[in-house]
Amino acid sequence: MLAGVNVGGTTTSVVLGTSAGEIVQRRAWPTQARDGDALIAAIVGALRRFGDAVEAVGVAIGGPMDARRGIIVAPPHLPGLHGVALGDELHAALEVPVQVHHDAAACALAETRWGAERGAFGLAYLTCGTGFGAGIAIDGRAHYGADGASPEIGHVRYRDDGPDVFGKPGCFESYGSASALPQLARRRDPACDARTGADVAARAAAGDPACAAAIADNAAAVGAACALLADLLVLDVVILGSLATYLGGAWIDAVRAAFAREALPDHAGTQLLPPTLPNVQDLSGLAAALNSFRG
Amino acid sequence: MLAGVNVGGTTTSVVLGTSAGEIVQRRAWPTQARDGDALIAAIVGALRRFGDAVEAVGVAIGGPMDARRGIIVAPPHLPGLHGVALGDELHAALEVPVQVHHDAAACALAETRWGAERGAFGLAYLTCGTGFGAGIAIDGRAHYGADGASPEIGHVRYRDDGPDVFGKPGCFESYGSASALPQLARRRDPACDARTGADVAARAAAGDPACAAAIADNAAAVGAACALLADLLVLDVVILGSLATYLGGAWIDAVRAAFAREALPDHAGTQLLPPTLPNVQDLSGLAAALNSFRG
Repeated sequence: MLAGVNVGGTTTSVVLGTSAGEIVQRRAWPTQARDGDALIAAIVGALRRFGDAVEAVGVAIGGPMDARRGIIVAPPHLPGLHGVALGDELHAALEVPVQVHHDAAACALAETRWGAERGAFGLAYLTCGTGFGAGIAIDGRAHYGADGASPEIGHVRYRDDGPDVFGKPGCFESYGSASALPQLARRRDPACDARTGADVAARAAAGDPACAAAIADNAAAVGAACALLADLLVLDVVILGSLATYLGGAWIDAVRAAFAREALPDHAGTQLLPPTLPNVQDLSGLAAALNSFRG
Repeated sequence: MLAGVNVGGTTTSVVLGTSAGEIVQRRAWPTQARDGDALIAAIVGALRRFGDAVEAVGVAIGGPMDARRGIIVAPPHLPGLHGVALGDELHAALEVPVQVHHDAAACALAETRWGAERGAFGLAYLTCGTGFGAGIAIDGRAHYGADGASPEIGHVRYRDDGPDVFGKPGCFESYGSASALPQLARRRDPACDARTGADVAARAAAGDPACAAAIADNAAAVGAACALLADLLVLDVVILGSLATYLGGAWIDAVRAAFAREALPDHAGTQLLPPTLPNVQDLSGLAAALNSFRG
């Protein structure tokens, strides 16, 4: 049996499961984001309640982090864990192998292992939510730098200018994240007062042209990011996280149309899919437990 | 002993060398680009003259190709090899293991193995010559897709518009290749009649402002491509092929300045270097002989 841990900004969950991706037990509670000791004690306590059957633990958590050494660096939503050697602490308490992965990478590993396109050689999992990130799995392993740092596609430039979401206007994050949608709508109509991605989506559905245009601008950026990944890494699959679930088929069609315009015809065989695993977050921790790093 | 083969559009060369990167013998002749049978026969003949000491053969050659199966697909400068299973043909004739690599990937492998930054975990070798390409070596292995296709960074979009070098105006190739320089100069001064990258370089050196601006535009694009590679793949080193040798230190400084503006501060530790191996082309074939594919 394996245990998976998912540490989000608001909720922490642990699952007990098998290498076939079956989840047997699950517990969840509010994340103690500011108190790292309490957060770790709660995870250890929950894992101990799974008993002695647990052979390995995987953790999926936000970056920046050093995934090779299991050290959490500075995720903005988890101040209590900054600089904490989470992998070592869990290993010391539980005495089983522990692997810590970036959450997007862990989702990529879960989709590679159990998703509709299981066994894909090259797969990227895009998160288009608060931020815009990508986990990359090549040949069943997550890609990190030598220092354990994660890919940062959100920081790559898409346009000369754009909304200022996280400090680099014009980067993919400033167009492709859900957080960008209100600013994208205001660029279309300065009077638009939508404050969240959900506002923009609801108004677009109700016929608001500025909000519909914002979603089109967002989809074009996501499609361009998929083309970049396909052309540079020759991937089999890109999974469109978060926004695909949220905005649905019309958005996915727009992303695919932008991809087809931008990608090399030779690479247009790359499939763009919404998440194929309904419980990918839970499975991401199990996948982390099963996977070691390349190298 | 190992043998390396380098098949270029104008010259084919073979070397006999060691796993330490020492080259013992070298022969070169004009490539029979339109006659695949003659080209293969010449390679086989030259390799046989190295005698029985050769334990493995590596080939570095232009794409598109299927590097996993050693099949040359359609390199524009080698019409005689389109669709040829070069790896199988050389293996049948020579009865030793043969590995065929994309030339940029083989240069990346050679730099990883014998260059100043040997042992780097993540290294990209950029070719900024006729085209704009990148070979990517991660953990000592070349990155290809499941189908053996190579990364195509040159096709990734850099600007909405730009010179039309190979069919996608605004892509990195349309700014970052040497072929782009005359068109970049004409965008600065429509009266500029420089016809080659060498013309543009010579005129820039003589004080022509349009040609100097063209080289600055080119360097900015190359720096942005390096930032993309560093942010997405968290590389240790990017080797600036061809143009770095040709345009020298001022161009490299401009590339580094553009990189520093664009890359994440966390990834700014990625080193941008001119080729550190003076005979990287010769060594690329030897590196190909020594390396197998990831997976």
